[in-house]
Amino acid sequence: MTKPAQNLPPAEFAKRVKRLAACQSRHALDAVFVMTDVNRYYFTGLDASNGVLLLTSSPAFYTDFRYLIMARKGIPFMPVKRIWQSADEQDSLAAMGKAWRRVGYEGTVTAKRFETLRKALPHVEWVDVSAAIHEMRSVKSLAEQRAVRNAVRANGLAFASVREQLRDGMREWDVRNLIRREMDALGQGEAFDTIVCAGKNSAECHHHPDATVIRKNRPVLIDMGVKLDHYCSDMTRSFCMGSPAPFYCEIYRIVEEASRSAINAIRPGRVCADIDAIARKPIEKAGYGDYFGHSLGHALGLEVHETPSFSSTCKTVLKPGMILTVEPGIYLPGRFGIRIEDVILVTPGGCEVLTARAVTPMA
Amino acid sequence: MTKPAQNLPPAEFAKRVKRLAACQSRHALDAVFVMTDVNRYYFTGLDASNGVLLLTSSPAFYTDFRYLIMARKGIPFMPVKRIWQSADEQDSLAAMGKAWRRVGYEGTVTAKRFETLRKALPHVEWVDVSAAIHEMRSVKSLAEQRAVRNAVRANGLAFASVREQLRDGMREWDVRNLIRREMDALGQGEAFDTIVCAGKNSAECHHHPDATVIRKNRPVLIDMGVKLDHYCSDMTRSFCMGSPAPFYCEIYRIVEEASRSAINAIRPGRVCADIDAIARKPIEKAGYGDYFGHSLGHALGLEVHETPSFSSTCKTVLKPGMILTVEPGIYLPGRFGIRIEDVILVTPGGCEVLTARAVTPMA
Repeated sequence: MTKPAQNLPPAEFAKRVKRLAACQSRHALDAVFVMTDVNRYYFTGLDASNGVLLLTSSPAFYTDFRYLIMARKGIPFMPVKRIWQSADEQDSLAAMGKAWRRVGYEGTVTAKRFETLRKALPHVEWVDVSAAIHEMRSVKSLAEQRAVRNAVRANGLAFASVREQLRDGMREWDVRNLIRREMDALGQGEAFDTIVCAGKNSAECHHHPDATVIRKNRPVLIDMGVKLDHYCSDMTRSFCMGSPAPFYCEIYRIVEEASRSAINAIRPGRVCADIDAIARKPIEKAGYGDYFGHSLGHALGLEVHETPSFSSTCKTVLKPGMILTVEPGIYLPGRFGIRIEDVILVTPGGCEVLTARAVTPMA
Repeated sequence: MTKPAQNLPPAEFAKRVKRLAACQSRHALDAVFVMTDVNRYYFTGLDASNGVLLLTSSPAFYTDFRYLIMARKGIPFMPVKRIWQSADEQDSLAAMGKAWRRVGYEGTVTAKRFETLRKALPHVEWVDVSAAIHEMRSVKSLAEQRAVRNAVRANGLAFASVREQLRDGMREWDVRNLIRREMDALGQGEAFDTIVCAGKNSAECHHHPDATVIRKNRPVLIDMGVKLDHYCSDMTRSFCMGSPAPFYCEIYRIVEEASRSAINAIRPGRVCADIDAIARKPIEKAGYGDYFGHSLGHALGLEVHETPSFSSTCKTVLKPGMILTVEPGIYLPGRFGIRIEDVILVTPGGCEVLTARAVTPMA
């Protein structure tokens, strides 16, 4: 059933490079360097740890010995060349860039790497294009939406299968291993380190699974995401195996209301920070505002955390095709925590919830 | 059998922070920022995606809501404080750093993050301490050596178990899944994406496992590393299931000789680049110099690729306690590739090979 990650068709990547070239000419850039891992993949479809996409008047992709065969097979729409030796980087770049005046770079490269670029091309005005690239990435094409849907579906299946296998007395760590197995069967593994919390560990939002044992009628929190064909999913479910205490159900309903309010408010044109504020209201009204200490959600795609985010500081305006999580939570230290996390796709008329909804706090 | 990653004792981390403080005073730095993921873990033992170790006259660790409980439990040797909001970062840093003149930072932070630091503290002289930190990390303590030994042993067991299960007709992808399962059973998963190559795919050194089928008497190359208790292992084995062709054995012996020459030459005081050159000689002499296109090896520890490396440009002098891979290879496009990768520990008198040696090109 399981198979290696499939790429979208080369035409999809070629189109992205064209859009980047359009961005290049809009910003009057003589060249653009793309050298960080995920952006490199986004524009080329090459899953490699080294390589530079260099847009100039004649764009090309440069990579080293290890990836040349792979790159020539995988990137039919652009010349692939052997990259300069890292020891000669400065001389090679200086030779190429004599005539460049304004050049785009990613602000997400390391400070050291950027320093090398600046030293090699001291006459150049550098323009950080990483925000522009992340903006491109934030609106998912139909093919990307399909890929995220598939990852979300696989994640739901993995969760359902694990939930059936959960037993009183299992350690968090056993559950984590079970989840990883399902994820390898249904996709290509984890999009991030799976979180499994039993009992009061659920009050720590990023608890690492340990030997704590899951008990009947006690809270469980599972935050998991299958990676499938390079795209991520992300879902949190909180429940009790058996009968939850009335107080647990009360908190659950507040978190659910926060989620519902946010989801009902999401539509193109709304500002991300406002959605975060809307989710906070029911939680604050119930007196638990101080126990919801993180942002409401984040975009996801090739990475599990992308921009924009539903946070109090994010001024991004929602557009159709954006995909984000909605994940309100209440964490009561020493007692328990509840988080409900879904993935939504912004549609022309509002949003579509891609995750299968869990409408009950019971397993 | 399997369990969550265990940390070294807190005393080990406290000692590292002391060494960093010594480095701070040697370089006359009023403060040092440590904010990248692996370095943060190296000094605190906290496995988190956010947090800043700030060495000043009163060192402290800052992290956000999600990690506070975990950090206070895990870092008993330093005050843990709630981090400033990212929106207020500039103001918060400006307020703290009024009196600072020289400040250390990691050149491996993003260019954007470094820009924020510089803007917040425009009067400061910035000193890149990432090379000094990597130098500290390159010499492994006895506790770290034990951790790597354990990871290497687990990796050897995983490989042996998989090799027994290999069958004619298995797809590379099936083998990769088998390996991941063993790695979850013996450690905490993969240190890097497992490489499985059947037949001529072995000529691509970083081939991604696909549906290609393993056949009797045909080459197989497996490059795998278990992660155990935060430390990495890394090993490549090349072999044929059944009887290899004489030409395969001939190439195997050349690669083996390259490996043996390098390992015999490794000892404290030698320069990394010289070891790389020594391994190249038998391969060049046999006429395959152009088919060994990568460096001879790399240090490993918390990360699978650390410094120094056995490359033609690395001038680092070997010291006891360094741990590196030795991985010569010959890749014949369209035919097959052979790489033999071992992990060695530099000892006072030479080096110790930590991986179990494969002395035959047959399975």
